[in-house]
Amino acid sequence: MDNVLSLKTLDKVAIIGVGLLGGSVGLALRAAGAGAQRVGIGRRRSSLNRALAYDAIDEATLSFAKGLRGAQLAVVAVPLGSFPAIFGKMAPHLEPECIVTDVGSTKAYVVRLARRILPAHARFVGSHPIAGSEKTGVEFARADLFDRAVCIVTPCPGSDESDTQAVVQFWEQLGGCVRTLSPAAHDEVMARVSHLPHAIASALVNLATTDRAINAAGTGFQDVTRVASGDPGLWLDIFLTNRRAVLSAIHAFQRELRRFRRHLAATDKRALMDLLAKAKTGRDEWIQAKYAQREISP
Amino acid sequence: MDNVLSLKTLDKVAIIGVGLLGGSVGLALRAAGAGAQRVGIGRRRSSLNRALAYDAIDEATLSFAKGLRGAQLAVVAVPLGSFPAIFGKMAPHLEPECIVTDVGSTKAYVVRLARRILPAHARFVGSHPIAGSEKTGVEFARADLFDRAVCIVTPCPGSDESDTQAVVQFWEQLGGCVRTLSPAAHDEVMARVSHLPHAIASALVNLATTDRAINAAGTGFQDVTRVASGDPGLWLDIFLTNRRAVLSAIHAFQRELRRFRRHLAATDKRALMDLLAKAKTGRDEWIQAKYAQREISP
Repeated sequence: MDNVLSLKTLDKVAIIGVGLLGGSVGLALRAAGAGAQRVGIGRRRSSLNRALAYDAIDEATLSFAKGLRGAQLAVVAVPLGSFPAIFGKMAPHLEPECIVTDVGSTKAYVVRLARRILPAHARFVGSHPIAGSEKTGVEFARADLFDRAVCIVTPCPGSDESDTQAVVQFWEQLGGCVRTLSPAAHDEVMARVSHLPHAIASALVNLATTDRAINAAGTGFQDVTRVASGDPGLWLDIFLTNRRAVLSAIHAFQRELRRFRRHLAATDKRALMDLLAKAKTGRDEWIQAKYAQREISP
Repeated sequence: MDNVLSLKTLDKVAIIGVGLLGGSVGLALRAAGAGAQRVGIGRRRSSLNRALAYDAIDEATLSFAKGLRGAQLAVVAVPLGSFPAIFGKMAPHLEPECIVTDVGSTKAYVVRLARRILPAHARFVGSHPIAGSEKTGVEFARADLFDRAVCIVTPCPGSDESDTQAVVQFWEQLGGCVRTLSPAAHDEVMARVSHLPHAIASALVNLATTDRAINAAGTGFQDVTRVASGDPGLWLDIFLTNRRAVLSAIHAFQRELRRFRRHLAATDKRALMDLLAKAKTGRDEWIQAKYAQREISP
């Protein structure tokens, strides 16, 4: 089972859903030197044709039977809301040697679905490459999307250790910096660094549009709110499938913001300075560590 | 008095404080074809020498008497906390024909200081170009920093109409999109689109560093929190000099975030979708309008 996902020996990869992320998996596979046949499975011929045109896949099919036949790896890259239907269509055609992973933004939900819908022999290990943008569609796919991107692999008690390693290795070969976390831990972390920031960015925009203050906004506001331009439907599903962790993150954030407000109300200069300096240091150190990683890596 | 600040006829401009913003004023003046002598006034010879090396100014002096002599325009580009001292040093040397403006991030405070400290004959009109970054120092100055940047000019009841027009014209010649607002209105708007987002970005970083969630953060988090890397001392002064408006903006934001939280707690899909879609539309339309503006302008 070792090295089953080495790009050198991989013959066939099925990519289910060839949008920004699925398309980038296809492009990154090719860029990393994989000779595997990349088969895109989709629901619409038009999207598949676009993916072919962008060379994100070698072959396209609407048939799960055909697409999954002989695949050693299947990467599910559809919106969260489509997972139940997609898993249902995959289930009858999953061959015993096929490892299944995904790129969904919440993991406890996806793992739960996989257990419920995929057959008992299915070798599923969830993943979440923290990459992408507020854009959607294969036309925004990039061969280097996963390069140095944090990529979280979420084994659960039922996962086979060698399958987990294979998925870890897969993302590493596409350039990702892989960490493993339990699905629940993943969801809590993402609630704080991704889902909460999205809720906040949306609230900031909605506040700034009510009185047209937005017309005086500059590049700072543009960056702070960038994620709010993401697809509302995709984000709705993220919030709904990670509801409890997001509620808890909002709660923690409200407490943090109240602290700032209290210090400002009291004109407590030293306490405010501490909060601002701590945030600057925290962010600068994080950026520096990311940058150092880039320097060292090939 | 008309066209007194036309770049064609301007002979001498004093730039007090030659950092990112003051340096960019110098570079932009030259790029816009102004033949005026650009004199930098500062407190440290080392900063002035750097500004000379970057060609942001033509001449440097530590003397306000020398620097302001014969200047038709003085641009104050020092941190908010330095305004009282700087206005005090300028006061004895301001000639009657010299128009004074500044680039401070809060305006009611600066205007109040100008009235109190500058001589009665001083022709002060505040401004705030919404440009810059989390960086500081003349090494980050850019000739195109004000190009298409929103630039708010804040006349007050005592301002001479032709002086206001001169300052408006000045920023327009450097490429800015100028709007006039009262100092109080400026401060309220900025509280919502700049100061509140900064407080929020800092709180997000502080929350994400406590449990190291930040290590799993991606480019979304990087953008949302970029402003939190700004200089804490500069930002402390911004918050302190715009305290009331920031408190009110935080209050309004808390209400907006509570609304999101309530809908999520109740799994009210339609209400959540409305908030997310409204934010996406609001931001996309704003970006589009900015972009259209760029297209039309030369």
